[in-house]
Amino acid sequence: MGELFVVSPASAFVAAAAPAGGLSFVGLLAALTAIYIASKALGEAAERIGQPAVLGELVAGVLLGGSVLSFLDPGEHTIHMLAELGVLILLFEIGLESDLGELLRLGPQSLMVALAGMAFPFALGWGVMALLGATSVTGIFVGATLTATSIGITARVLADMGKIGSPEAKIIIGAAVADDILGLVVLALVKGLAEEGSVSAASALRMTLLAIGFFGAALVVGRLAAPRLVKVASAMRVRGVLLVSSLSLAFVLAISAHAVGSATIVGAFAAGLALASTERKVSIEERIRPLSDFFVPIFFASVGAAVDVRFFNPFDPGRRRTLAVAGLLLVAALAGKWVAGFFAYKKGTKLRRSAIGVGMIPRGEVGLVFAGIGLSTGVVAGDIYSAIVVVVILTTFVAPPLLRASLK
Amino acid sequence: MGELFVVSPASAFVAAAAPAGGLSFVGLLAALTAIYIASKALGEAAERIGQPAVLGELVAGVLLGGSVLSFLDPGEHTIHMLAELGVLILLFEIGLESDLGELLRLGPQSLMVALAGMAFPFALGWGVMALLGATSVTGIFVGATLTATSIGITARVLADMGKIGSPEAKIIIGAAVADDILGLVVLALVKGLAEEGSVSAASALRMTLLAIGFFGAALVVGRLAAPRLVKVASAMRVRGVLLVSSLSLAFVLAISAHAVGSATIVGAFAAGLALASTERKVSIEERIRPLSDFFVPIFFASVGAAVDVRFFNPFDPGRRRTLAVAGLLLVAALAGKWVAGFFAYKKGTKLRRSAIGVGMIPRGEVGLVFAGIGLSTGVVAGDIYSAIVVVVILTTFVAPPLLRASLK
Repeated sequence: MGELFVVSPASAFVAAAAPAGGLSFVGLLAALTAIYIASKALGEAAERIGQPAVLGELVAGVLLGGSVLSFLDPGEHTIHMLAELGVLILLFEIGLESDLGELLRLGPQSLMVALAGMAFPFALGWGVMALLGATSVTGIFVGATLTATSIGITARVLADMGKIGSPEAKIIIGAAVADDILGLVVLALVKGLAEEGSVSAASALRMTLLAIGFFGAALVVGRLAAPRLVKVASAMRVRGVLLVSSLSLAFVLAISAHAVGSATIVGAFAAGLALASTERKVSIEERIRPLSDFFVPIFFASVGAAVDVRFFNPFDPGRRRTLAVAGLLLVAALAGKWVAGFFAYKKGTKLRRSAIGVGMIPRGEVGLVFAGIGLSTGVVAGDIYSAIVVVVILTTFVAPPLLRASLK
Repeated sequence: MGELFVVSPASAFVAAAAPAGGLSFVGLLAALTAIYIASKALGEAAERIGQPAVLGELVAGVLLGGSVLSFLDPGEHTIHMLAELGVLILLFEIGLESDLGELLRLGPQSLMVALAGMAFPFALGWGVMALLGATSVTGIFVGATLTATSIGITARVLADMGKIGSPEAKIIIGAAVADDILGLVVLALVKGLAEEGSVSAASALRMTLLAIGFFGAALVVGRLAAPRLVKVASAMRVRGVLLVSSLSLAFVLAISAHAVGSATIVGAFAAGLALASTERKVSIEERIRPLSDFFVPIFFASVGAAVDVRFFNPFDPGRRRTLAVAGLLLVAALAGKWVAGFFAYKKGTKLRRSAIGVGMIPRGEVGLVFAGIGLSTGVVAGDIYSAIVVVVILTTFVAPPLLRASLK
C-alpha cells in the first residue's frame, strides 16, 4: 500500500539540510524545536480557554504539517520512529499509573463497552453504506474502519484532568486495550475478506484466542519478571539501570505483541501494569515522566501534521459529496461509541456513562490502515476513502472537548 | 502533494516490513533493548573490576556491531540520529553542571592546554609521516587528524567518578570546548589545502574569529535568554514546559553553531552553561538525567559498533604494516596530548597535570572526518587511512582506564 503514503515536501530549510534518505541532524533539531514551541504555546492557549492541552498540540501539528507550513513531515523515517516511541511510552506510563486489580474488577464492564463499541459503529457504518447503495463487502469494510479506538488522545485528556484514577477512566482504558487486542483480529479478518472474498470461522477463532492469550501471558510474564528486574536494578552500581531495564521490559513485551499480531502498545501497557505492582513504582514514574515529556508531543504533532486542511473546504464542489458522506459516517462513528458507554452497567455503581462512550470516540491509525487496504484492493472507492479519512480526523478533534465537558 | 492526507506507514504492525531505507519500529525496539542490556551488563562488569563503566559500554557496542554480532548498525539513519542526540544531551548536561565563572577563571589554562594539545600531536603526526617518507601535504593531513579531542568519553568518566567539579575536569572541559571550536577551523583549512593546494591567511583568520565569536555570542544570548525562558516556563500550566524549553534553547544554539561551521555540541554546551546560572538549575538537571540515561548509551554503543575488530588481527600479514604505522601514530597521539596537560600552569595551584593530558586523549568523529576527506581527495593512501582509524579507536579505549588511574 505504498502509494497511499504520500510524503509531504519538506520546507526549504529542512530540504536544504536533508541528505538522501532522511532528515539531517540539524533538520531533526529544527523539527523538534518547532514541535516543542508550537505544542506548548498552543497547548497552553487551549488550557486557558478551557480546552484540553492535547487539542492545542494537535492544532500545532496541523500548522507545522504539509498542508500549511510544510515544516514537519510525519512520514519522515526518524520523526515517525520518535512518534511511535512517543505513543509507546505514553501507554507504558498509563500502565504504570493503573492498578491491575482494579482493571480486572472492572474487566467485565470494559469488555462489554469494547464489544458494544465495536458492534454499533460497525453496524451503523455498514447501514450508512447500504443506504448509499454500496455492496455488502464495501459496507463491511467501512463498518470495520469505524471500530478501532485510538487511546492516546483520551489517555492524555484523562491524565491532564487528573482523572486517570476514576472508574470511568479505568473502564475506558480497559475497553481500549480490549479494543486494540480485538481490533487487529478484525483487521486480519477484513483483510482476508478483501483478498480472498471469504474468511473461515476457524482462523477467526484462532486469531482471537492468540491475541487474548498473548495479553494474559504478557501480564503473567510481566508480573513474574518485574520484581526480579527491580531487584537486579537496585543492586547495580551503574547509572540509569532502573529506567532502561523498565523500558527494556516494555520493549520486549511490545516486540512480542507485534510478533503475535497484536499492537506494540498492548505490550508496553502490560509492562507498565506489571511494574506498577513493584516497590520502585514511584521511582520509575519519576524517571519516565521526562521521557514522556520529550517523546509524546512528537506523537501528537505528527498526528496533527498528517491532516490536510484542504480536505475541509466546503467551497470546493469536488469536496462536497465527500464531506456529505463523511457527515453521515461521523454520526455513525460518534453515536456508535456513545451508545457503547451505556453498556458499562453494574448495579449500584454511579458512572458517567456518556463520558465512557465519548472517551472511546477518537479513531486513529488502525482505521486509516483498514481504509488504505480497502482502497488498494478496490473494495473502497476514492471518495469513500477520503470520507473515512475526514471522519478519523474529526473524531480526533471533537473528542477532547466533549470528554472534558462530559467529565466536568 | 498528490493525495490529500499524509499517512505514515503507521502502527507497528504495518511497519512489519521495514520501510525502504531503514529499520522497522520493532527493529528499533530490539536494537535499543540490546544496547541497554549489553551496555548496563558490561558497564557494571567494568565497574566491578575497577574500570570506568563507559569502557564496558564501548565493548558492548563492539560486540553488537557489524564485525561481531551484526546486530547494531551505527550508520542506520535513526540509530545515528539517536546517537547524535545522545552526545548533544550529554554535553548539555555537562554545561548544566559547569560554572561559567570557574570556566572563565581557568580559561587561560584551558586555552594553553587546547593550543598545545593541537600543536604537539600535529607536529608529532607530521614527523612520523616524514620519517616514513610521505609528502608534506600528507604529513599535514595526518597531523591534523590527531588534533581534535572527543570530549564525550572523558566527560562520562569524570561524571561517573564524581570529579566533574574538580579543577582538572574544568580545565579539560574548557580545553575540549576550545578544541572543538578550533578543530573545525583546522578541518576547514586542511580541506581547503587538499582541494585547492593552498590556504589564504585571511580566510584562516576569518574562520577562527567567526568560530570564537560565535561561542561568545552564544554565551551572551544564552545568559540573556535563560532567565526569561525559566520564568515563562514557571508561569505555564501545561506539563513538561521547563524540560522542552531548556532543550529548545540547546537545540537552537546547536543549530546556530552548525550554521557558522562549529560543532552542534558547542551550542548545546553553551545552552547548558547559560541555564546553570538560573534558579531552576536543579529542576532542569533532574529532568535531563532520565533523557541522558535513555540517549547516551546509544551514543557509546554506536561508537563501539563502528569498530571493525578484524583491523586488529596481527596474524593477517595484510594488517601488519597498517598496525605498525598505527603504533607509531598512536605514540604521537598519546604523547602529544599528555605533554599538553603540563601547559596548564598556574603558580601556586596543585594540579594533576597528567590527568589533564590524559583527559584530552580520546579522538572521535572529527579525526575520522579529516581522514575520510584525505582518503577521498587522494592525499591519504588506504593503508594510512586504516592506520588512522585504528589510532582513533585505540585512543577511545585506552583513555578511560588511564584517566581513572591518573585521577585516583
